[in-house]
Amino acid sequence: MTDLVKHQRMANAIRALAMDAVEKANSGHPGLPMGAADIATVLFSRFLKFDPTEPNWPDRDRFVLSAGHGSMLLYSLLHLLGVEEMTMTELENFRQLGSKTPGHPENFVTTGIETTTGPLGQGLGNAVGMAMAERLLAAEFGDDIVDHRTYVIASDGDLMEGISHESISIAGHLKLSKLIVFYDDNHITIDGPTSLSETGDQVARFEAAGWNASRIDGHNPDEIAAAVEAAHKSDRPTMIACRTTIGFGAPTKAGTAGSHGSPLGAEEIAGARKQLGWDYPPFEIPSDVRDSWRIAGLMASQVRKDWEKHLGSIDAEKRAEFERRIRGDLPAGFDETIADYKKKLSADKPKVATRKASEMALDVINAAVPETIGGSADLSPSNNTRSKGMVAVTPEDFSGRYIHWGIREHGMASAMNGMALHRGVIPYSGTFMVFSDYARPAIRLAALMGNRVVFVMTHDSIGLGEDGPTHQPVEQLAALRAIPNLLVFRPADVVETAECWQLSLERRTGPSLLALTRQNLPTVRTVFEHNNRCSRGAYELAPADGDADVSIFASGSEVEIALEAKAQIEAAGHKARVVSVPCFELFEEQSEDYQADILGTAPVKVAIEAAIRQGWDRFIGNRGVFIGMDRFGASGPYKELYAKFGITAEAAAKAALDRLTALA
Amino acid sequence: MTDLVKHQRMANAIRALAMDAVEKANSGHPGLPMGAADIATVLFSRFLKFDPTEPNWPDRDRFVLSAGHGSMLLYSLLHLLGVEEMTMTELENFRQLGSKTPGHPENFVTTGIETTTGPLGQGLGNAVGMAMAERLLAAEFGDDIVDHRTYVIASDGDLMEGISHESISIAGHLKLSKLIVFYDDNHITIDGPTSLSETGDQVARFEAAGWNASRIDGHNPDEIAAAVEAAHKSDRPTMIACRTTIGFGAPTKAGTAGSHGSPLGAEEIAGARKQLGWDYPPFEIPSDVRDSWRIAGLMASQVRKDWEKHLGSIDAEKRAEFERRIRGDLPAGFDETIADYKKKLSADKPKVATRKASEMALDVINAAVPETIGGSADLSPSNNTRSKGMVAVTPEDFSGRYIHWGIREHGMASAMNGMALHRGVIPYSGTFMVFSDYARPAIRLAALMGNRVVFVMTHDSIGLGEDGPTHQPVEQLAALRAIPNLLVFRPADVVETAECWQLSLERRTGPSLLALTRQNLPTVRTVFEHNNRCSRGAYELAPADGDADVSIFASGSEVEIALEAKAQIEAAGHKARVVSVPCFELFEEQSEDYQADILGTAPVKVAIEAAIRQGWDRFIGNRGVFIGMDRFGASGPYKELYAKFGITAEAAAKAALDRLTALA
Repeated sequence: MTDLVKHQRMANAIRALAMDAVEKANSGHPGLPMGAADIATVLFSRFLKFDPTEPNWPDRDRFVLSAGHGSMLLYSLLHLLGVEEMTMTELENFRQLGSKTPGHPENFVTTGIETTTGPLGQGLGNAVGMAMAERLLAAEFGDDIVDHRTYVIASDGDLMEGISHESISIAGHLKLSKLIVFYDDNHITIDGPTSLSETGDQVARFEAAGWNASRIDGHNPDEIAAAVEAAHKSDRPTMIACRTTIGFGAPTKAGTAGSHGSPLGAEEIAGARKQLGWDYPPFEIPSDVRDSWRIAGLMASQVRKDWEKHLGSIDAEKRAEFERRIRGDLPAGFDETIADYKKKLSADKPKVATRKASEMALDVINAAVPETIGGSADLSPSNNTRSKGMVAVTPEDFSGRYIHWGIREHGMASAMNGMALHRGVIPYSGTFMVFSDYARPAIRLAALMGNRVVFVMTHDSIGLGEDGPTHQPVEQLAALRAIPNLLVFRPADVVETAECWQLSLERRTGPSLLALTRQNLPTVRTVFEHNNRCSRGAYELAPADGDADVSIFASGSEVEIALEAKAQIEAAGHKARVVSVPCFELFEEQSEDYQADILGTAPVKVAIEAAIRQGWDRFIGNRGVFIGMDRFGASGPYKELYAKFGITAEAAAKAALDRLTALA
Repeated sequence: MTDLVKHQRMANAIRALAMDAVEKANSGHPGLPMGAADIATVLFSRFLKFDPTEPNWPDRDRFVLSAGHGSMLLYSLLHLLGVEEMTMTELENFRQLGSKTPGHPENFVTTGIETTTGPLGQGLGNAVGMAMAERLLAAEFGDDIVDHRTYVIASDGDLMEGISHESISIAGHLKLSKLIVFYDDNHITIDGPTSLSETGDQVARFEAAGWNASRIDGHNPDEIAAAVEAAHKSDRPTMIACRTTIGFGAPTKAGTAGSHGSPLGAEEIAGARKQLGWDYPPFEIPSDVRDSWRIAGLMASQVRKDWEKHLGSIDAEKRAEFERRIRGDLPAGFDETIADYKKKLSADKPKVATRKASEMALDVINAAVPETIGGSADLSPSNNTRSKGMVAVTPEDFSGRYIHWGIREHGMASAMNGMALHRGVIPYSGTFMVFSDYARPAIRLAALMGNRVVFVMTHDSIGLGEDGPTHQPVEQLAALRAIPNLLVFRPADVVETAECWQLSLERRTGPSLLALTRQNLPTVRTVFEHNNRCSRGAYELAPADGDADVSIFASGSEVEIALEAKAQIEAAGHKARVVSVPCFELFEEQSEDYQADILGTAPVKVAIEAAIRQGWDRFIGNRGVFIGMDRFGASGPYKELYAKFGITAEAAAKAALDRLTALA
């Protein structure tokens, strides 16, 4: 059997599994796996450092199927290479509830999947972050320990999405030469030929972004292999535009949108079997093909074993540190570091914006936790994300810990996901909170995947003042709290900010987001407690003197207002308490008893937040008093804005007292 | 005085006003207006069809300052050209509450501003839509009536944002030759020199996207004028990379990030006056400069008068139609058209997905309303946005009414804003609802500006099934309802879908969004009513037989489940009613009495929606029963998913009966 025939049979195994699994599921996308099978076969059988017996070893090459709808490509590869979990039964259960083969690849469901893709462009963004993490760790631990590549298969859709621009720009700028993107250039999208909506030149485009780029025949294994070898020698990231035929092998649907997103049908599949020379029944792999793939898997295992041997031979302390980083444990003593810092704050009582409080916390954290990687989408002086002495990464030197992301919120957030998925670093980065909208699809995926990333969102309300409604978040707090598994923190002062940072870093199961002010706030936590009070999501900051007539719930900058309202209510002869609510989601995790205690029994409940009401009914009920926003903001000095929109202690106290009078 | 000196004095007037207004406001962005003053002076004094006495005349050229932070450039121009409203007092009140000069340009506040910018990249996207609307209307009404250009000033930030890629790709594809973008290439962003994060070649990038692109000295008026003249002759859109100095004229801060976003300070301003040869006090314009600008304004007025004369001479019916379109009135008889259609539906009772119901409604609507322009972000066969006989727009022929946007949700939504701002067309377009996240910054701006655009979001829950959690909206309904001034509709059947479409089109003050199912739903509105029941946001679809024990609130696909739960509760001997809730926002606009009636007095309240609870406490209180989602979805057949997540009539009925038992 010639090498070419062997290659084709290996690739055809993928094609057959893909079309048969989609047919059995009666839904799915056969076109991409059939079209990209040659690329994947060359990559996985000749180049990829991937060990099917230990798919998560640290120095493996990363492979990202950015066009996640072609998930059967990945599942077929995992099966053929011999990943134990990916049995033939799993392939037969494609897209069924509880299977390891969901419609789109989910890294938290399936071993050997690097990231969750499907929303187009995200995989490419993740891959940029993975390639950055590789460089960052190599700069720290040495190329003998960290030396792997990141490969991507991207579709037309991936490259049409705006995030692709942000991702390839930063990758080109940083000269991520170990990042290699195969562009599955099949000239087809769902609506029909790409010519309906695209006439751009992708090769020229990538070159303009500082990439090495070329065009090849995506069905010619020699051209594919030569392009990969050339990419390995490049000092820039590489894009290989592979001209392919979507649904390759299907007699009438190949090269058409008809093979993209639905089962081919029995007749077409029979025709494809004939055309491909594939005489085997569904879900049966002939032994020669199975052997070819297993041998590829075994060869990759050896690479991993050699690396482990080398790792075992290096300095023990360095190895322990590397292993800690990969495990994701924080350095010992982190808790005490934060406690000491809080003690100092409660004594000093600084009046600073929480964005400044965040910078102060980062001065402490970044000194204690070497794995944090900071950054900002070109708002470093506003987001206060660059702590003392932090050095920026440059294309030539990755020993720094700060990334100038440029004005690329979406690419930044998606790359942060990739960094977290890579492991070994903990990324945090900033932008204005209103622009969380730009990064939202990546924030959602961070939550879905459970990635440890921290989004620093400053200028969190009308409190930013003159920049006006385009820059003033009003609905973002509610919209972010809506995302499952995202912790949204809105600390009220320096101490809460330190506590929220601690919780964000200690969290291993998902992302956190800090909503921080532009304007200064007094320290309200003036009595030191070792205990992290924010960990319960909401807590009684200022008790009433006896049974409360009024419970006031507030977050962030409005806690100051709540405390002042309490004083005014008390001056009017009633009793009030203030509950600080730094994190809705953590409050929901508390016991029913704790929740009931915090909600309390005061006849009047008030919530204050310079944002919309949505979500606050949980605390105050649908008849509670809400002091906040019900429309977009306006441009003007911030104190005037608070007055204009009625978010004042006076308004809160008056509303509470009016209610008490009405009840009396 | 030479032409050059005259030009420089006109430009320096802008520079002085910008630096002085920012200084007085003690916040703002002097750098861009000072750097781009030469470009703007050439454009506004020699080319732009803009009439200061009638800034909104239909065939004017559009000018978009995509880099909205440079708002003082626009305000200065409006003042100097003689727009009455833009008095010197307004300039002195820059960034003050209630002024016509907010921090970023707001088209709904200030006459002569075409769009609201600040969130970077959006202005460019809007401009693409404006240029498309121009071509669409010209194809319909003739180049003698519609013949204008769209100009943009874009910054580094605009071009780093991903949306810029989507926008320039579609513009290049459609050969929007009357779109001209000045790239303010000043080599500076907030973090410092652009070299910190960008090494791409913008000219090559635009060329790769099918644009005509060149580089010029952005301070040389002859080069600027020559580039504009060349652009006028191009058959492609044009990008002119103008090398400028940010903060031009400032002695120490010019060319640095220090001039970008804060007042220059008294000393620097004095130095700039000296360097620019500008000896006048703040907010004083010498008469020669005032005259030069006013003459430019007067010349533009004449163009408008000539056009009006021509419009007066054309066929009266055609003129009336053109004027109706510009006013934004719907065709007479639209209401009856919908009523007739609803009558047929209530008789036929089809069981179809609401995405199909939307297509059926569009068959009726697009036949009756010639100004609708449909489209999809490459999901036409899934979004069902292309109605019968709708012809696609091509680069060569704009007489069609359907846009293949490609996989560009964000660029699409931003361009839709531009189309609506242009006036004369009503754009609607589709994508999967989960990908509303990709378009969210543009959806927000649609709401802020009050644009009449309709977002068609299909596959609106776990009901989409096998594609899994990356594609299943869970939090999007809440997150979209959070946006002020956006109507989020989730119709329950064919009739409600028709009603929601009617409301969306009749709405002149803001955007609407339709959340539509992939799965089939029965007709629940089987009795014809002329009245649009959805117009009240929530209404009693199925009354109880007497006083209700249980009120069930539901939207969209869960109304069917609510009706079945009602039947089960009744079978258990209790009384239940069902309220359909197609639109939270419209419900909030109803009288307190109506709201109280709808909320009702049943002791047990249940809400059912295949999404998160956030927002529903408004209907059921914080102790009500919610049947929905509290985490991300999963991949599998949709009926299995509804069962897995407990969104069933059985679960709802059981929860309600348990509550009744507990209360008894």
